[in-house]
Amino acid sequence: MITMPTIIIEGLKADVETKRELVKKITEVVREVYKIHHVTVIIHENELENVGVDGELLSDAIAKRKG
Amino acid sequence: MITMPTIIIEGLKADVETKRELVKKITEVVREVYKIHHVTVIIHENELENVGVDGELLSDAIAKRKG
Amino acid sequence: MITMPTIIIEGLKADVETKRELVKKITEVVREVYKIHHVTVIIHENELENVGVDGELLSDAIAKRKG
Amino acid sequence: MITMPTIIIEGLKADVETKRELVKKITEVVREVYKIHHVTVIIHENELENVGVDGELLSDAIAKRKG
Amino acid sequence: MITMPTIIIEGLKADVETKRELVKKITEVVREVYKIHHVTVIIHENELENVGVDGELLSDAIAKRKG
Amino acid sequence: MITMPTIIIEGLKADVETKRELVKKITEVVREVYKIHHVTVIIHENELENVGVDGELLSDAIAKRKG
Repeated sequence: MITMPTIIIEGLKADVETKRELVKKITEVVREVYKIHHVTVIIHENELENVGVDGELLSDAIAKRKG
Repeated sequence: MITMPTIIIEGLKADVETKRELVKKITEVVREVYKIHHVTVIIHENELENVGVDGELLSDAIAKRKG
Repeated sequence: MITMPTIIIEGLKADVETKRELVKKITEVVREVYKIHHVTVIIHENELENVGVDGELLSDAIAKRKG
Repeated sequence: MITMPTIIIEGLKADVETKRELVKKITEVVREVYKIHHVTVIIHENELENVGVDGELLSDAIAKRKG
Repeated sequence: MITMPTIIIEGLKADVETKRELVKKITEVVREVYKIHHVTVIIHENELENVGVDGELLSDAIAKRKG
Repeated sequence: MITMPTIIIEGLKADVETKRELVKKITEVVREVYKIHHVTVIIHENELENVGVDGELLSDAIAKRKG
């Protein structure tokens, strides 16, 4: 039984309904394209202050935009 | 500009058409579910002898099945 | 001093005794096979609702089985 | 728009000021060396009991040293 | 001896001089910010056709721009 | 069927016999400690010039030692 591929998603916090939908649809796409049935998806939910985009923490970028 | 999420795919070797389709469809799904426009997908193509499933290299498992 | 390899374990929640044993034994195996003394192990404990197997969240799969 | 590279930092817990400085400086270095403007940094803050160095959990190693 | 953190760089192909400089500077920054001496940096050099940005392979995006 | 955990090994080049043994033994340890049957192991074989330890590429460190 081949259980590849494994998909790791480096994302932000999300509710369980979003994650359920994400896993369902990502799996459908991977099965369709790769023709492999067993797919593992791992979601890493990162805090806004643990992600930096273009040199700035997302938490800071969002605070500025709102400020 | 928020460029999250980043999707890392630990998969097997694939041709460029397969990867093109995979990136297109994974991005569509992630945009639809997360409502975020900028998505990065990184595909790690692993050799069959670098993946172990249930204690056996995939290269060995496939050789047995054919043997 | 060569500190490779680094082992990343994408696992589920576990108690400290389990993790202590896991790190000890994984390190022994890696030292024995690779003949390298310095080994780093990083355990990512993933929530059941952050892991999808075959299109379904583990939290949903387990709830069904119990239901 | 090229958003590579993505930098994943497997580190320990840190305060927001440390992470802000880390993201700023890592981004500067990556831009300078790679000549690419868009850089994503993801910080995984690992608990001491989820990191093993040379066969021992960091939490145990630190407790011993203090003991 | 604490060997954290480990830095994983998901980047593109680069020459050895670029990688030498990157490792040197990233290590300096991490030491300065985290006050930890032992730092491991792992560079994953990804092919242009294995990276997707906004739904398109980088190899395709670059071919278009030149075309 | 639960296929967790996934083990990612950031290592150096190795021959197939080494990798076969590594996958076999890592899987045994993970099964024994976690009581989970299905284990996926992915080995990333990194070039010496893609790994930096304490600010220096491994390829440079080894050349110096031999020089």
